[in-house]
Amino acid sequence: MKNKFYKYIENLQNTITETLEKVDGKATFKEDLWKRKEGGGGRTRVIENGAVFEKGGVNISKVFGELPETLRKQFGVNEGNFFACGLSLVLHPNNPFVPTVHANWRYFEMYDELGNTVTQWFGGGQDLTPYYLFDEDVIHFHKVCKEACDKHHPEFYQKFKETCDNYFWNAHRNEARGVGGLFFDYLKATDEFSIKDRYNFVTEVGNSFLCSYVPIVEKRKNTNFTKTHKNWQEIRRGRYVEFNLVHDKGTLFGLKTNGRIESILMSLPPIVQWKYDYHPEVDSQEAYLLETLKKPKSWV
Amino acid sequence: MKNKFYKYIENLQNTITETLEKVDGKATFKEDLWKRKEGGGGRTRVIENGAVFEKGGVNISKVFGELPETLRKQFGVNEGNFFACGLSLVLHPNNPFVPTVHANWRYFEMYDELGNTVTQWFGGGQDLTPYYLFDEDVIHFHKVCKEACDKHHPEFYQKFKETCDNYFWNAHRNEARGVGGLFFDYLKATDEFSIKDRYNFVTEVGNSFLCSYVPIVEKRKNTNFTKTHKNWQEIRRGRYVEFNLVHDKGTLFGLKTNGRIESILMSLPPIVQWKYDYHPEVDSQEAYLLETLKKPKSWV
Repeated sequence: MKNKFYKYIENLQNTITETLEKVDGKATFKEDLWKRKEGGGGRTRVIENGAVFEKGGVNISKVFGELPETLRKQFGVNEGNFFACGLSLVLHPNNPFVPTVHANWRYFEMYDELGNTVTQWFGGGQDLTPYYLFDEDVIHFHKVCKEACDKHHPEFYQKFKETCDNYFWNAHRNEARGVGGLFFDYLKATDEFSIKDRYNFVTEVGNSFLCSYVPIVEKRKNTNFTKTHKNWQEIRRGRYVEFNLVHDKGTLFGLKTNGRIESILMSLPPIVQWKYDYHPEVDSQEAYLLETLKKPKSWV
Repeated sequence: MKNKFYKYIENLQNTITETLEKVDGKATFKEDLWKRKEGGGGRTRVIENGAVFEKGGVNISKVFGELPETLRKQFGVNEGNFFACGLSLVLHPNNPFVPTVHANWRYFEMYDELGNTVTQWFGGGQDLTPYYLFDEDVIHFHKVCKEACDKHHPEFYQKFKETCDNYFWNAHRNEARGVGGLFFDYLKATDEFSIKDRYNFVTEVGNSFLCSYVPIVEKRKNTNFTKTHKNWQEIRRGRYVEFNLVHDKGTLFGLKTNGRIESILMSLPPIVQWKYDYHPEVDSQEAYLLETLKKPKSWV
């Protein structure tokens, strides 16, 4: 399974970066291969200063070896080996009318002292962070997520949509990071689902990503915008940074376990503003976004 | 003591903001008074878009009441009341040749169920974060810190300088946030020092702040700079954000205990950049800064 899923994310990274380069039309992804001293490594692909994407990364990595201290504590085991691989992407568009998107699909295995697999699971999801809110775009994104889920279980969408809303909550601001999508973790084999079923589900979601996001980009990428729109985008990007550095478990795990910093922090936006106590005008488009982020909403 | 120290920081806030407004010559501090539901409140003063200060805050606050859950855990007590007050400041200059400065001086008291004071201490310090490194500026800053310390104990400077270097360490980047200064905490009454001695020391340090920083600002504020210098400043500000949101105990404590977010996050710079895997040119001024931040250095 680990080889099969790694092969899958290798191919998916190629498909996604090729498609996004076509969408951008100007910039291409720069590739960095890196190795992890303790075992494994990754293929980081970053795009900067594009016509559409101001900054973005589509990274895969595979790490294995002895369980790091933090994971041993988390899983309550004294020793053991692990294998983890995944694809992570974040895209920060230049045009404030195009939303930022984040996605991650990953697989984890843990072994006992004899090398037997004691547990294996999938995790991941995808979520959207608009600066200007067009309901139809959010509905489209969620519809694609729901269609992928519905092929596997009628309750998956609602469950993983709610998990996503809970996870991407900027608690100190008392607002959502964005308009959500899907988030799932610890998808193990059960009586109902084999690990093969889990693989089929996660890859279904991964395959749906471009359909969920690219049509929104195409629709909005040529919208005219002013310095005022850009300022708002940069202020809101500040909230994105706050979430990733204060709350995001994946980012903090990477920073605290000596991960490859530049691959982890490619998620941070290119230009960000923090103004003191900034509030948009009442009844403005900007205020509509803030109102919507106050509590999770059903989109489909 | 609590009233005496609060009076002191009220006056110090006035002195500092009046002086900084003169140094700036264009912008003035905007004052926000706020109340804490559970007891206390603060006086936040923020300056933005000045001739010298692009963004900065000089805040005082006084909070009291029942010990919040997190503090009860930290101190290993089941109940009790507390009082805390302090002045916090961060200044982000516009000119990349003027360093950012941070300072904080605070006082804490804790009471048992009968209202008796069971413990009281002072904490704080001040530290400098340059974007372009002029040794003479750093030496000046440290000299003023040392002079204030030396009046109270010959070992204070070395001790608190080292504590500062250890505290402001951006572990995930393996570099210092800046060139340090002083940092001290839990300065309680001992056989050697009364709480009055501690007060005298902390206020000596507080009183030295303007002497440590303003001469550097005056010396550098009119230096010509280019977009290249500004870019470097904005990239380095990213490291400042990373430290404050990932490592700074004060910031995280505030965010996780429902503090006044806008007063806490006034510390974040106005405009920040994150470029993927950015490295300055070999032997450049920018590279000299990075080299210096790799390990703590004796400045005086």
